[in-house]
Amino acid sequence: MRRVSDPAVFTGQARVRAGILVTGTEVLTGIIPDRNGPWLSERLRDLGVDAATIQIVGDRPADLRQALGQMAAAGLDLIVTSGGLGPTADDLTAEIVGAFCGREMVLDEALEERIAKIIEHNLHRWPDADREAMRTANRKQAVIPRGATILEPHGTAPGLIVPPADGHDGPTVVVLPGPPRELQPMWEDVLSAREFRRAIADATPFRREIVRLFGLPEAEIAATLRAAAAAGLHLEALEITTCLRRGELEISTRFEPASQSDYDALVAFVAERHPRRLFSQDGSTIDEQVAQLLLQGGETIAVAESCTGGLLAARLTDRPGSSAYMLGGAVVYSNQAKSDLAGVDPKVIETHGAVSVEVARALAEGVRQRFGSSLGVGITGVAGPGGGSAEKPVGLVCFSVAHGRSGDGSTTRTLTRVRELPGQRADVRERSTTVAMHLVRRILSGECD
Amino acid sequence: MRRVSDPAVFTGQARVRAGILVTGTEVLTGIIPDRNGPWLSERLRDLGVDAATIQIVGDRPADLRQALGQMAAAGLDLIVTSGGLGPTADDLTAEIVGAFCGREMVLDEALEERIAKIIEHNLHRWPDADREAMRTANRKQAVIPRGATILEPHGTAPGLIVPPADGHDGPTVVVLPGPPRELQPMWEDVLSAREFRRAIADATPFRREIVRLFGLPEAEIAATLRAAAAAGLHLEALEITTCLRRGELEISTRFEPASQSDYDALVAFVAERHPRRLFSQDGSTIDEQVAQLLLQGGETIAVAESCTGGLLAARLTDRPGSSAYMLGGAVVYSNQAKSDLAGVDPKVIETHGAVSVEVARALAEGVRQRFGSSLGVGITGVAGPGGGSAEKPVGLVCFSVAHGRSGDGSTTRTLTRVRELPGQRADVRERSTTVAMHLVRRILSGECD
Repeated sequence: MRRVSDPAVFTGQARVRAGILVTGTEVLTGIIPDRNGPWLSERLRDLGVDAATIQIVGDRPADLRQALGQMAAAGLDLIVTSGGLGPTADDLTAEIVGAFCGREMVLDEALEERIAKIIEHNLHRWPDADREAMRTANRKQAVIPRGATILEPHGTAPGLIVPPADGHDGPTVVVLPGPPRELQPMWEDVLSAREFRRAIADATPFRREIVRLFGLPEAEIAATLRAAAAAGLHLEALEITTCLRRGELEISTRFEPASQSDYDALVAFVAERHPRRLFSQDGSTIDEQVAQLLLQGGETIAVAESCTGGLLAARLTDRPGSSAYMLGGAVVYSNQAKSDLAGVDPKVIETHGAVSVEVARALAEGVRQRFGSSLGVGITGVAGPGGGSAEKPVGLVCFSVAHGRSGDGSTTRTLTRVRELPGQRADVRERSTTVAMHLVRRILSGECD
Repeated sequence: MRRVSDPAVFTGQARVRAGILVTGTEVLTGIIPDRNGPWLSERLRDLGVDAATIQIVGDRPADLRQALGQMAAAGLDLIVTSGGLGPTADDLTAEIVGAFCGREMVLDEALEERIAKIIEHNLHRWPDADREAMRTANRKQAVIPRGATILEPHGTAPGLIVPPADGHDGPTVVVLPGPPRELQPMWEDVLSAREFRRAIADATPFRREIVRLFGLPEAEIAATLRAAAAAGLHLEALEITTCLRRGELEISTRFEPASQSDYDALVAFVAERHPRRLFSQDGSTIDEQVAQLLLQGGETIAVAESCTGGLLAARLTDRPGSSAYMLGGAVVYSNQAKSDLAGVDPKVIETHGAVSVEVARALAEGVRQRFGSSLGVGITGVAGPGGGSAEKPVGLVCFSVAHGRSGDGSTTRTLTRVRELPGQRADVRERSTTVAMHLVRRILSGECD
């Protein structure tokens, strides 16, 4: 995946730049994944604030101090921290940020009272807890930099907005708790805080739009974008990123509201060059589109899978409410199962081999009959790493989708495909489900083959 | 999940400190999650190298340069980068690292030749591609800092180990590609490279061992560890982390080789307190254990899934060679399918409801007969968010495993379970597959119920 537009050329530069500082030894050591950094980055960018960096450090005070200092030295306007606001001795973020902003630490007695009430409320779940020790530990959470804006706790830890003290140069620091379930609701309070709005006053909010294509190599979309620039489109006003995801190509574009017409022109250009490849202009995913097509048309679906071994069925049942259209599936790993469960004539397997368009087609038609569904999907292929041959290499997968009326055995239309998919066993299996989803979309949307 | 031992008390301190620098605007902006930072952090710690920070920056050359400079200024001994090695103009990591290490960029013609071969091999999938343009773009990937160690590509991008040039002070930089499927296999080559071993020569490698338990709350293992400390075990020599993963409890312990006996004593203590819960002492996963038990016993398996919708079949076919024991499965979302494909008597469904131990048992026995396998698994439950009731709430799942001789319809032993699983739809579905795997293990290992 790659940034397509040249960042040096892109004219919509955010005028406010932020650093995100995630603290926590468990995050740094990979024991738990960081969910706050990317989440905050997206929220900031929606506001027109560019996250210049996400930095993760452990619970060492020296590392935290150093990271703050380096972000200030890099000229960032805003720093958002997560973590280190708990009641224990190694939760030091508030104190370190206070010193960094030139503010002394003071006990806020009203805040202490509010935290005490929260703790009292929680204590009934822990009847054996030492109440006095807990109150003492939590008093620490009410000691804050003088003059900081308090963000009310969603657990027991309050957040803080700490502007630089008078005569102190440097960024405003937003201090948030580590658990995402506390941090995320607190973000609403950040947005409405005057000190925060003041810190990002120079930012222009961006729009972000996504289009998705299927069946196009990444190199070709790069060529299309070059052609768009050559045709005089104003790509310099757009920040375009392309990304291969689950076998699809995603074009994500960020732009200032004034550049909406430039974006629209780009989408029209892409749509004209790749009409059959562009399947989503409104951000919808293939899974959403297939679900909607099935629901709208009153269709039902059943699948017979060999190499994907249940992944397509799992994907189709991933969404709540999928029982409205998903009748079920057969995982037919053995040849015997292909015949017994999906009604594939053993002679077809003998003649063409288990991995063949003929068997894929027989699976699709057979499973459709078996379940009485309007759609049947058949997948058979070589997921690897073993089992490949010169004629049928690892990655070769055959697909078929059969369509007819529910409860009526006769199939009125069938699409088949053979694809050679790249990657490891897990990649081949996952991409196969994507190919199948697109075949289902194609047959339901009436696009001819 | 939580760190159990106090990092300030833990005596095994790493003497080599590293920075991890993840590049990519898509990662910085939260479009794709960073999987490399935590992965590299864990690998480094296994080598006794402490990751002091993980920093994510976009594709702006200035930000990348600044991050490298700051890591050097912080006195880090080693920097590992990921991303920015692709063929396009904004893939600039190699060039920036070269300048940072005081080395000029040179074209390595032998490397260019090797990359050309890889591309040639891939081109048959894109017959329409502009070959000359692709080769030109990929020549860029063969331009490397003079004197750098080349790590052979696992995609088309080679990695690099770049020590500081003579007379240049600073850390050695390991430059790796962004896609995890390219980065992870390349790590093996990093480990064996002389320049890398030289850079981390002062580190004391840790051992890391994992034991796994199933069916134990996290709070209870914390109590066990307190009891172990009270019993005089030397936990201060062990860095112990507990983690709930896919419904299992993982205890991961890191220690210097000299503390092996302390670790062994801990495992013996846990095994004595939780004999039925501790299922893995050698790092093996439940998936590995089930695969081995199936293979060793010459067993075959088939599954009938309702709420998991194919996930268990997908999990059982995830491993190469699984066709030796996995015959297939039936995804029986509708009641009709439960009867048609898994032979469940409609009266059983009518009497007990689709989510019931009786139906789970009928599914297990029915699918076993249908496929002629020695083992049959049945799962039926309420994955949510809808469909729950006071009697059968969201998260309630019924399991059954039936065992007998292959090809012989009569079941000789059946295990059934009812569990109320926490979390969202996706959690309930995934944890259900874990419960089922453990039931299969239990019946095959002859552990009584």
